[in-house]
Order: sequence, then C-alpha cells, then structure tokens
Amino acid sequence: MKLGVWGLGSMGSGMAQSLIRTGHSVAGFDPRGVTLDGAADLVPSEMEAAIVVVLNAAQTEAVLAEILPQLTQGAVVVACATVPPDFARAMADDCAARGVHYLDAPISGGAARAAAGDLSIMASGSAAAFAAARPALDAMARTVFEMGDAVGAGSAMKAVHQVLAGTHIATMAEAMVFGMTQGIDPERFLEVIPQCGGTSWMLENRGPHVRDGDYTPRSAVDIWIKDLGIAADIAAPAGIDLPMMQAALDGFRRAVEMGLGGEDDAAIAKVYAAQAGVALPGEAS
Amino acid sequence: MKLGVWGLGSMGSGMAQSLIRTGHSVAGFDPRGVTLDGAADLVPSEMEAAIVVVLNAAQTEAVLAEILPQLTQGAVVVACATVPPDFARAMADDCAARGVHYLDAPISGGAARAAAGDLSIMASGSAAAFAAARPALDAMARTVFEMGDAVGAGSAMKAVHQVLAGTHIATMAEAMVFGMTQGIDPERFLEVIPQCGGTSWMLENRGPHVRDGDYTPRSAVDIWIKDLGIAADIAAPAGIDLPMMQAALDGFRRAVEMGLGGEDDAAIAKVYAAQAGVALPGEAS
Repeated sequence: MKLGVWGLGSMGSGMAQSLIRTGHSVAGFDPRGVTLDGAADLVPSEMEAAIVVVLNAAQTEAVLAEILPQLTQGAVVVACATVPPDFARAMADDCAARGVHYLDAPISGGAARAAAGDLSIMASGSAAAFAAARPALDAMARTVFEMGDAVGAGSAMKAVHQVLAGTHIATMAEAMVFGMTQGIDPERFLEVIPQCGGTSWMLENRGPHVRDGDYTPRSAVDIWIKDLGIAADIAAPAGIDLPMMQAALDGFRRAVEMGLGGEDDAAIAKVYAAQAGVALPGEAS
Repeated sequence: MKLGVWGLGSMGSGMAQSLIRTGHSVAGFDPRGVTLDGAADLVPSEMEAAIVVVLNAAQTEAVLAEILPQLTQGAVVVACATVPPDFARAMADDCAARGVHYLDAPISGGAARAAAGDLSIMASGSAAAFAAARPALDAMARTVFEMGDAVGAGSAMKAVHQVLAGTHIATMAEAMVFGMTQGIDPERFLEVIPQCGGTSWMLENRGPHVRDGDYTPRSAVDIWIKDLGIAADIAAPAGIDLPMMQAALDGFRRAVEMGLGGEDDAAIAKVYAAQAGVALPGEAS
C-alpha cells in the first residue's frame, strides 16, 4: 500500500517503521521537522491510507483539514489519537462527505510495541473502512479489537481503558507511598505485590520508574489530564459519576500544579509523597 | 509437627488440609461446630504451633485469650487474620510474656490456593518465630514474603496490598459500568481489557462475577469495609491521605447501605450501575 503517517512521535515513528518493514510505501509528516528513515516521497492524492497518530482531537482535526481535500475517493483515514467519541463521529461525517472512509482506531501499547508492529488497536467503522485499512492494521498491530461498525465505539473503548489505566497508576503511587510510610521500601513492594492479587499491569510497568527515581517521560502526566478529561466529558453530561477516575484525575491535576506535567506519569507519586511527607528514591529527604 | 488450626472457614479448612496432607498432626477448632476431616485429637498444651485463621482482630484476641495460658514455652502463634499492625504488636507482647513466639502472618490467595498449600504469606517476626513456624509455613504457602523481624511489618504489607486490591475491584466495577453506558457489554470488556495495559489481577478475577451476574460471596463486600478500614485507621492518625482507597471504601460503604454487605465484593458494581442507570447482567432493567 501507499500510505502517509501524520505524527512521528514515539508511537507514529514506530508504526511507520512497522509499515515500511512489511513492504508498504510510507511517507511521514511531522510539524516538528522529524524525518522518517526509508520514507517514500508521496503526496496525499497518491495514498490509499492516511494514518493520523497525533496528540489529540485538535491536532487530528488540523491534519484532516489539510489532507482531506487531497485524498481520493475510497482512501481511508485511520485516526489513532485518543479523542471523544462524538469528535470521531464528526470527523467520520466530514470524511464520508468526500467519499473517504474513516476508521476510529485508538491505539494501546507504547513505543516498543509500536516499533515491533505489536500494538493493540480498538477500532470501529464500516466494513469498507476495515477492508481498506486491513493491510496497514496487520502491519502495525498484534491485536485489532473490532468494536463494530459505529464510529465512536473504538474511542469509547479507549476512554474506558484509560479510566482503568490512569486509575491504576494513581493507585500504584498511593499504595507505594503508603507502604513507605510503614517502612516498606519500593523495592520490596515491587518484589511482593506482583506475586499477589493486588497487582496491575500499570503497577508492574510504572512502579519501577518510582523505585528508580526515573521520571523520563515515556507517557507524561499531561496525557492523563487529556485522556481522563475525555472520560469526564463523556460522563458528566450523562450524569454518570466516575469517583475512582475522578480521584485519579485530581491527583494528576495536583501533579501539574506542582510543575510535573511533562514528567513521566509515575510522577503522580510525588503528589502523594509530598502529602505524606516521605522522600521518594532519588529525592532529597 | 503437632498443630492446631483455629477458624475452619474456607481459608482455615484448606490450610488445615494442607498441613494434614504433608504429614502434620492437626486439631481443628471452630465456634460454628465445623469439623476437620483427618483431625488429630490434641489439646493446646501439646501443640508446637497454633495457626489462627479467624476473621479479624477481635476474634484473634478471643482465641489468644483462650489458648495462650495453655500453650507451652517455645510454641509459636501464627496469626493470619488481616489486623492493624499495632494490634499485632500488642498480641506479640502478650505472647512474649508467656514465652510463646508470635508470627505476624497475614495470608493472600483465596480458598483454592489455601487447599492446595499455595498461599502467599506476608510474615514478620523474630528468627525464632520463623524457625518454629517454618514446617507449617512450608506446608501452607507457595511463597513466604519475609518482611523482617519486627512484628507489624507483615500486617502493614497486607494493609498496603488490600489498598491495591480493593481499589482495583472498585475501579473494575466503575469502568465496566461506564463501558456499558457507552454500549460496551461486559463480555466484550473482558475480552479486550485483559489484553491491554489497563488490566489488573482483580479485574480478571472479579470481572467475570459481574458479567455472569453471580454474587455468591467468594470474598464479601463486608471484608473490604474491615480491611480498607484498617488502612484508613493506620493512615488517618498519621495525617496520610489515601484518596484512591477512600473512593473505593466509599463505594463499598454504599454497597453495604444497599444491603449488599454479604454479597461477593464484585457487587460494588451495583452501586455504580444504580447511579448510572444501567442494568447489570442478571438484573431486571
């Protein structure tokens, strides 16, 4: 296939490389001037698929405003940012008006799995959109969860997933700090809990960042303000309370107030540690 | 070894059977008149170890008040209930005054692992207490996490573990209900999430109870009022906020107010479902 990938951050560049490795012709675009090794020289009118791997809804909208007039009928937009389901439906309508398919296709997995072609994709869209995107999906993902033909279902699944993931990061941080107040150091915590029923994928993935005092952003605090904000924006107008999610979002917001928005999301531990009066690994006591 | 097991509920009876199966002589005691297959006829003065597997601190205290005058010097009490660290220290002092060792040894794993001798035990106590208890620990547990020689450390680790486990149950329930409001049924939720970074051990263990509408208590809502209450009782006097735990405890308390205290802890989903106005599997809409 001839494709374009918009957004060459850690996810987009890995996905583009997975596409190139499996024999596709891929052009890459990034407003920061990032370039793509092995890229093909393609313009949107030549492309069968446009993979949009930008940060949020506003950036997705900006990319589509630019490329939609240039895409040809039957091409497919694969929209991978975490966005509100209503936004996904609006973009799909814009695409449909020009005969372009739209796959609502948020991704999960992280940079290493993106580079390996091992992502999870939570996708919804018409059968024609899935068919047009299939070779690209197969190159980028280990698992494509097909959430049905209604655009928005993929984004809804992603919002639910982010509620779980963000809440588990906050819970890991709270429990690790609580343990420290009781004399349980992070190393011991991470030896014991993963062997017990209290573990989570996020605890095992992010806990070592706190133990090592390493807040290099693999996924930043700011991402959770956005992603949990999407869940809040879906739930609030419908009168749905999400108290666990809200407690996590409150923690991430306090982290931003402490100037930690650009740090790794495990830095939410600094919020709880400051409150409890304990010094995390790597911090002065 | 000659041992007694106090408390023949689902955990205690499985642990007693694991001890019998590995060749120990075991007497069993339960105020409800439950009996133990293959039990030996022993009185406390003959026992090298007393395994106390009752519900809470009050029951532990009552058992010790009864048996401590009868135990001989050098015997060991293995206290397995989830209790406050301060309570464990007080009991250890009472035992020490009579020359009896005390192992602060909360358990994790559930009935099936108790019966298989595969529990996790978070234990702290003197080297002499560990040595005296070792054959019994080996018979009951796959993993003994040695939390040091200070009684209370095992109970602190258990409290931290319960913060994680209880919070993850509440988060699973909230996210599953949120998904239902967005058209994602529990079956699909449980197909997708366990393959993604948003999963937890509790989600995979308790989620199917909600999907199946099966609230037969494997572990009851009431347990979490007690266990999260222990965490709150440790944290509050020290001025430590546990906002994630508190949000979960609020949910379990609302479940009790709805008359669900004796149901499986997955019934916390009924709290969130009632608020969101969705009908869970097995419930009238």
